[in-house]
Amino acid sequence: MDGLNSSARVETIVWRGETLHIIDQTRLPGCLETRAITDYRDVIRAIQRLEIRGAPAIGIAGAYGAVLAAREAAKYNSPSARADLEEALSALASARPTAVDLSWAVDRVRRVVARTEGGAPAVADAILEEAHRILAEDLEKSRRMGEAGAALLPEDACVLTHCNAGGLATGGYGTALAVIFTAHGAGKKIRVIADETRPLLQGARLTAWELQRAGIPVTVACDGAAAWLILRGEVDAVIVGSDRIAANGDVANKIGTLGVALAASAAGVPFYVVAPTSTVDVSTPTGDQIPIEERSAEEVVCPFGIRVAPPRVGVRNPAFDVTPARLVTAITTEKGVHRSPYEESLAGPGVG
Amino acid sequence: MDGLNSSARVETIVWRGETLHIIDQTRLPGCLETRAITDYRDVIRAIQRLEIRGAPAIGIAGAYGAVLAAREAAKYNSPSARADLEEALSALASARPTAVDLSWAVDRVRRVVARTEGGAPAVADAILEEAHRILAEDLEKSRRMGEAGAALLPEDACVLTHCNAGGLATGGYGTALAVIFTAHGAGKKIRVIADETRPLLQGARLTAWELQRAGIPVTVACDGAAAWLILRGEVDAVIVGSDRIAANGDVANKIGTLGVALAASAAGVPFYVVAPTSTVDVSTPTGDQIPIEERSAEEVVCPFGIRVAPPRVGVRNPAFDVTPARLVTAITTEKGVHRSPYEESLAGPGVG
Repeated sequence: MDGLNSSARVETIVWRGETLHIIDQTRLPGCLETRAITDYRDVIRAIQRLEIRGAPAIGIAGAYGAVLAAREAAKYNSPSARADLEEALSALASARPTAVDLSWAVDRVRRVVARTEGGAPAVADAILEEAHRILAEDLEKSRRMGEAGAALLPEDACVLTHCNAGGLATGGYGTALAVIFTAHGAGKKIRVIADETRPLLQGARLTAWELQRAGIPVTVACDGAAAWLILRGEVDAVIVGSDRIAANGDVANKIGTLGVALAASAAGVPFYVVAPTSTVDVSTPTGDQIPIEERSAEEVVCPFGIRVAPPRVGVRNPAFDVTPARLVTAITTEKGVHRSPYEESLAGPGVG
Repeated sequence: MDGLNSSARVETIVWRGETLHIIDQTRLPGCLETRAITDYRDVIRAIQRLEIRGAPAIGIAGAYGAVLAAREAAKYNSPSARADLEEALSALASARPTAVDLSWAVDRVRRVVARTEGGAPAVADAILEEAHRILAEDLEKSRRMGEAGAALLPEDACVLTHCNAGGLATGGYGTALAVIFTAHGAGKKIRVIADETRPLLQGARLTAWELQRAGIPVTVACDGAAAWLILRGEVDAVIVGSDRIAANGDVANKIGTLGVALAASAAGVPFYVVAPTSTVDVSTPTGDQIPIEERSAEEVVCPFGIRVAPPRVGVRNPAFDVTPARLVTAITTEKGVHRSPYEESLAGPGVG
């Protein structure tokens, strides 16, 4: 049985007619708009402006961005084509610092470039094949994460999630939401509380939109309400995605995740992380070494262009936080379910 | 030494020329606008629309609202004047359910009505005197809470606060912010992180405005960032106000407070509550019995009239949460500093 119904799929990133097409996520839920991109620099801009966001999705976008860069190099037939491409790959890899899937995907592209003989057109074709492979693998990994993660949920459950770890954050089905889609598809009665997720409201805008589209009951609440709802016993499980998982199981995810994890721990509610193994960064020993992106003050004090704080006030806007491994009940990857101690279990095959 | 500098005072609620004047807090920080109110029904509306908010402030507003109701009864010289007044008092007392200071103030008015002989004009005059007394006492209580609470802060401290417990939440100086104003006035180096406090952003709009006005460094962050900043060691103390404190020391305060308290507890950072004894409700044994107001969905999904979630999505919007007494390091009232076990210490004189 395939619990992931293809009607749940979102065409977050598709390659069609020699062009990359992305859903501009800043326009959702009011407007479902696809944008065509033909220059890798616009891929970088789209990632930085969060038109494409979510760790696996920006990895896929990075790979297709590399195709655009390689075609540009091929077009001008420059003798420095490989050096130009490497420059573009570096720029793509550093578009955002926290999610490791981006540099993981660019590293895959680099290996393809290294082993491809011939001129720039051949390299571009080989990168396109690799990008297609990364996207196809992503869809398959969502299916596996969905099945392994859904097995952890009871027949009737209220699940709280933070930010968006759905089809929009991946190639089409999601990580945390793939688990919810799969459990729902398997007939479990799942209802979801979506934290709105300030400052950019990916929970209210994107997660609520995806779940509603899939026919799953969803309730939006402010981030500050999560601890109260969890401690009152209204939540059976928390499921979130991740932007980078350190070797010891510390989990970087959207700012606000740590507070949810503390509340879940205090209430004895399981806190599940769902992410592909490309999100696990074995070269980062603990969460202390994960770089945390600090974004612009305007996201906090000028939502929708409306100023909500006095001028010249200080602002902190860390985009991510790190949840220590001790607060994480299990990490589900495409290999299965991993439990503490994560140093060993993440390196192993996983269960389920 | 009086640590509360009168320049920090906000004229939240004043009686001038037979009329109640309030700052319309929904317009801040863009616009500092005072509104004159001559009908007690408009006091109720102003409380419900959060033009006046904060537990002590709505208590004071309730008392002045009673003056307007009594003058209306006196004006029509009706034989049912006392019954009409009692009806108005009931409506005032139930304008919002969670903050106990409102019914505390209306009960004080009721006792004045009961002991005042003569017709409606005499009753109205007696209520006006009582309302002035409640406001004057509030200012004095802020001074005392400020001094007792400031003694708990180190010479150099980063304090995190949630929502607004400042002059705008009281007669003029605040509860939690009175502590900060006093410590600052006494020469301590205090800087503040103000949680923005969704849905209505009282932290970003009001607390940042008050602190900036008083020359105290203030940084605004999204509510979801609080746990991360606290666990990273950036915060030396958390100080919040309260809307109702149960006999056992459980503390109802703005939604999001509980999450901050859990983070402070996990990080070993002191979590201080500052509130006058009128906020302590000895008739409510524990937090489980405190009624929690659920406010409109629009506050969450239509900030500034802009829809941020898909239509017909479910919404939860509890306005308050309850922090269990075990997470509260100390409660400072005008009597001094109270520590666990709160059943005994809140009934006693307090320390300091």
